[in-house]
Amino acid sequence: MADYIESLQRLAEKFGQLEGVGRKSAMRMAYSVLEMSEEEVQEFARALTDAKEKIHLCPICQNLTDRDICPICADESRDKSTICVVSDVRTLASIEKVREYNGQYHVLHGVISPIGGVKPDQLKIRELLERVGRNDVKEVIVATNPDVNGEATAMYLGHLLRPLDIKVTRLAYGVPMGADLEFADEITLSRALEGRRDV
Amino acid sequence: MADYIESLQRLAEKFGQLEGVGRKSAMRMAYSVLEMSEEEVQEFARALTDAKEKIHLCPICQNLTDRDICPICADESRDKSTICVVSDVRTLASIEKVREYNGQYHVLHGVISPIGGVKPDQLKIRELLERVGRNDVKEVIVATNPDVNGEATAMYLGHLLRPLDIKVTRLAYGVPMGADLEFADEITLSRALEGRRDV
Repeated sequence: MADYIESLQRLAEKFGQLEGVGRKSAMRMAYSVLEMSEEEVQEFARALTDAKEKIHLCPICQNLTDRDICPICADESRDKSTICVVSDVRTLASIEKVREYNGQYHVLHGVISPIGGVKPDQLKIRELLERVGRNDVKEVIVATNPDVNGEATAMYLGHLLRPLDIKVTRLAYGVPMGADLEFADEITLSRALEGRRDV
Repeated sequence: MADYIESLQRLAEKFGQLEGVGRKSAMRMAYSVLEMSEEEVQEFARALTDAKEKIHLCPICQNLTDRDICPICADESRDKSTICVVSDVRTLASIEKVREYNGQYHVLHGVISPIGGVKPDQLKIRELLERVGRNDVKEVIVATNPDVNGEATAMYLGHLLRPLDIKVTRLAYGVPMGADLEFADEITLSRALEGRRDV
């Protein structure tokens, strides 16, 4: 029986520790490792330790990178006077994919959450303030999620940054493109009305 | 942007090679590796190579094992005269979980598939015949799936084994426990009628 094989079980446990992987999927993944060639498995193991060893936070924007400074911070063509604040690296990747934004980023690595017990000093807010103080930053766009914690974080940052004479903005609220207005929720609709613009 | 990080990308690719893992899940898994401690990642890498190094096929039943002979074949209390033939290791694990069967197993590592191009000599059929010839086997239960390839494999094995004066049986077909007869398909119902028994 498969459960007898200790090393398989241990491997499945490791897969199970990854985000979004359940017990059954973890076991299936462990089985498929056995179907790989020895070389492929070695490479896989190397890719794991390599990624962990090489990737660290960019000392400027706190994004993940395997270089001294991340390519975005190192890119001289990007506007240094605007910083887009995101809660995590994946949001940064999503915004970057749009290819509309040409400023800098700052990754907080979380949002303030009174219920979740996440306090401002656990986020990369100090690093943001230092950065803003050191450089000629004119605008900070707070691109946290439009939910309770994301809003609280945005308000907190607004509170900190406005006295420093920095414009603090938030992404526009409204109905998403392609949405059916019939099914839009009330809060979204009310925000969309509030933020209506001339055509 | 995340796509810039070569070592992260490479790790995500490795996860994507596993069965049932899509591109987005693979990326999510790669990110969650970065959230592990360095020690945990080292352990993960070790678990990978360990499993691949230690696990091999049991020389008797072709089940996966990390010992010389798998615990089922090594278990003296199990009936050596009955062999349950399964297509893969996971089916074996499922049958073993029921704790009803006390005989031996034999893993074919696939089923005959004319369309998929799987021929009998690519399966562990020769090993089964050798085993049956060497030992005092009385019955072979063919527990392949009740589909075209599984049936073909069962018939093929029946053809080979019956002349050796070995009873070849197949799992019972019928309606699954708890099923609603209204929704049972016709083939299943007709097989269930065919195989009816006295109560």
